Amino acid sequence: MTTPLPAPICPPRRILMGPGPSEISPRVLAALGAQTVGHLDPYFLQVMDETQAMLRQVFRTENQMTLAVSGTGSAGMETCVVNLIEPGDKMVVCVNGVFGGRMVDVAERAGAVVTKVERPFGEIIPAAAIQEAVDKVKPKVVGIVHAETSTGAWQPLEEISKIVHAAGALLLVDCVTSLGGLPVEIDAWGIDAAYSGTQKCLSCPPGLGPVTFSARAVEAIDKRKTKVQSWYLDMAMVRNYWSSQSRVYHHTAPINMNFGLHEALRIVLEEGLEKRFARHQENHVALKAGLAAMGIDYAVAEPHQLPTLNAVKIPAGCDDKAVRGLLLNEFGIEIGGGLGSMAGKVWRIGLMGDASSRRNVLLFLGALERCLATQGIKVSPGAGVAAAIAAYGK
Amino acid sequence: MTTPLPAPICPPRRILMGPGPSEISPRVLAALGAQTVGHLDPYFLQVMDETQAMLRQVFRTENQMTLAVSGTGSAGMETCVVNLIEPGDKMVVCVNGVFGGRMVDVAERAGAVVTKVERPFGEIIPAAAIQEAVDKVKPKVVGIVHAETSTGAWQPLEEISKIVHAAGALLLVDCVTSLGGLPVEIDAWGIDAAYSGTQKCLSCPPGLGPVTFSARAVEAIDKRKTKVQSWYLDMAMVRNYWSSQSRVYHHTAPINMNFGLHEALRIVLEEGLEKRFARHQENHVALKAGLAAMGIDYAVAEPHQLPTLNAVKIPAGCDDKAVRGLLLNEFGIEIGGGLGSMAGKVWRIGLMGDASSRRNVLLFLGALERCLATQGIKVSPGAGVAAAIAAYGK
Repeated sequence: MTTPLPAPICPPRRILMGPGPSEISPRVLAALGAQTVGHLDPYFLQVMDETQAMLRQVFRTENQMTLAVSGTGSAGMETCVVNLIEPGDKMVVCVNGVFGGRMVDVAERAGAVVTKVERPFGEIIPAAAIQEAVDKVKPKVVGIVHAETSTGAWQPLEEISKIVHAAGALLLVDCVTSLGGLPVEIDAWGIDAAYSGTQKCLSCPPGLGPVTFSARAVEAIDKRKTKVQSWYLDMAMVRNYWSSQSRVYHHTAPINMNFGLHEALRIVLEEGLEKRFARHQENHVALKAGLAAMGIDYAVAEPHQLPTLNAVKIPAGCDDKAVRGLLLNEFGIEIGGGLGSMAGKVWRIGLMGDASSRRNVLLFLGALERCLATQGIKVSPGAGVAAAIAAYGK
Repeated sequence: MTTPLPAPICPPRRILMGPGPSEISPRVLAALGAQTVGHLDPYFLQVMDETQAMLRQVFRTENQMTLAVSGTGSAGMETCVVNLIEPGDKMVVCVNGVFGGRMVDVAERAGAVVTKVERPFGEIIPAAAIQEAVDKVKPKVVGIVHAETSTGAWQPLEEISKIVHAAGALLLVDCVTSLGGLPVEIDAWGIDAAYSGTQKCLSCPPGLGPVTFSARAVEAIDKRKTKVQSWYLDMAMVRNYWSSQSRVYHHTAPINMNFGLHEALRIVLEEGLEKRFARHQENHVALKAGLAAMGIDYAVAEPHQLPTLNAVKIPAGCDDKAVRGLLLNEFGIEIGGGLGSMAGKVWRIGLMGDASSRRNVLLFLGALERCLATQGIKVSPGAGVAAAIAAYGK
């Protein structure tokens, strides 16, 4: 080889406050780097069983078919769609952001006849609009995003679930930016299929897609007349590998990624879901108080703001990329820009998993004050940090 | 939470001599556990560029579209098939093992009209049989497995490539158990699309699927009239994220898995491909000499035995599972059982990547002698180890 080799991996230290990946505990990184074993090794099979049990706790479900798909959150979306949909099936998809739009694309590629329920980016989908759509379409599946990573909108689900079930349809929910950070009640809310990613509120690196399917959803899969179009994501085969009763080889699981997820789930359950949700809420409230003191508004109306993903309006006269570049290069802080129609208009500040901390909130507000100063934008000195501290109380 | 948490990840030490995953260098595990950065972080984009450049060297190709798909080797297979095939397209698939059979399933799910060229497990596909099939079918794509992980057969490709191209078809090759262990000459042999896995001869944990597409294959993708059925694996979008010219967000890449692959590729190129192939061959020859001295035969005829995956016949009167269990529990050595029609009839001994070492060959032969003794199978004491030592020469 005459071509010189690149330098070894040596990433800069970042504080991950973007739309994901979020900050990863050193415990998770250590598990990720543990010695690899075979995908049929008794030890790995035990790890799979334990991971399923912990995923059920985090999803708040008894669903047997609960596991981590061997791809990222988007593979989780595709898994749910292609297993539930057969060509010609009718599906209602709610679109108020990029990820609802993605679900439409995935569903159409699976042969679904899609009816969209649309609302502008940043708004939520009203239950009445879904009532109207299911009455008209009589769909097999209704798909909706719980926490729109692209807009920061927090979608209520309980009333919608009742409407969907009354119409005899299955409810499919995107929990990518909610699982582990906000209440996700698969069984109590009657969600039939849900997917998430590992790199958001679970604070594990990206690479796996936790999914869960209700008994009703499994029945729909079992009743399919056609094969699932994706061999890789075919749950009828994947479940035989994950089932302790069968363990039929399907594909070679990403062993070390599953080690990482196992440790991340242990950390989530060690903290406890209620405490974890309260922490996400508290840091969101403090961040919001700080931003308000600096004159920065949210892109989403008050009752529907995600605590995990804070989409805020970029102040007038402020250069989006310059500020994000300065945050990254001077402070090592990553935040996200806007996606789709919100590009250049919003910043997306993630407070997910390990990244949802008082340390990060205060640091970010201080760093942002410095960045705004470079843009000639006047804020009351120290007001952001002070307001956040006040919000934390005594 | 009242449910007790499982214990932290603490895998047993294994020597991975099965069909993959293979042994992983501590350097790769350290890279895997490096601090996560964002998927659009300038550092990660640099890692992607470097990984592409190294993958091109390992694949021996100039193909622009060379990258690691965010799923395992089977996702790599699905990526190649679903991007090249549109519903109704004709495809010839060669089946002489489990993975050829899998390609048929994947292709049919993508809407291909598949013609199989079949040979018994353990044999190779003769060029004449492919000539006959392409003459009859006039396919768009011919798919074949270079190194059949299920049988240990090593498929010659050069003559077949000429036949396929003379017929105006595209050649798709499964390089899962060959890339990094045997010569894979994408450009010199005229392979149009190929996929591999990270966990075989590249000695990285499973989780990514290296793929490469020739200019002709890219042209076929660009000329598609229908969308690729998989959103997640749609190369027209994936390439825009991997391209340093565009970097359009598609999905969140598995950051840490890519760190691991980067280090694994550095190790491959540090050793040099020719030396690496020679090492794989040398250890295969020594293992074979040792096994022969113990009266154990290969399942594949001499000229077509893979050095990376040694499929051998289980001696008469020997309990397959008991021996593999003893190897695992007493010595920490994993080997594979047979798949499909070879279940219970063969053992699959992997000598891939880091696992292809003199240390492993001698240890395995010694351990196997001990295991055969527990089965009451007589072998000349020490003969296996002695024969392997003799094969290594001075």
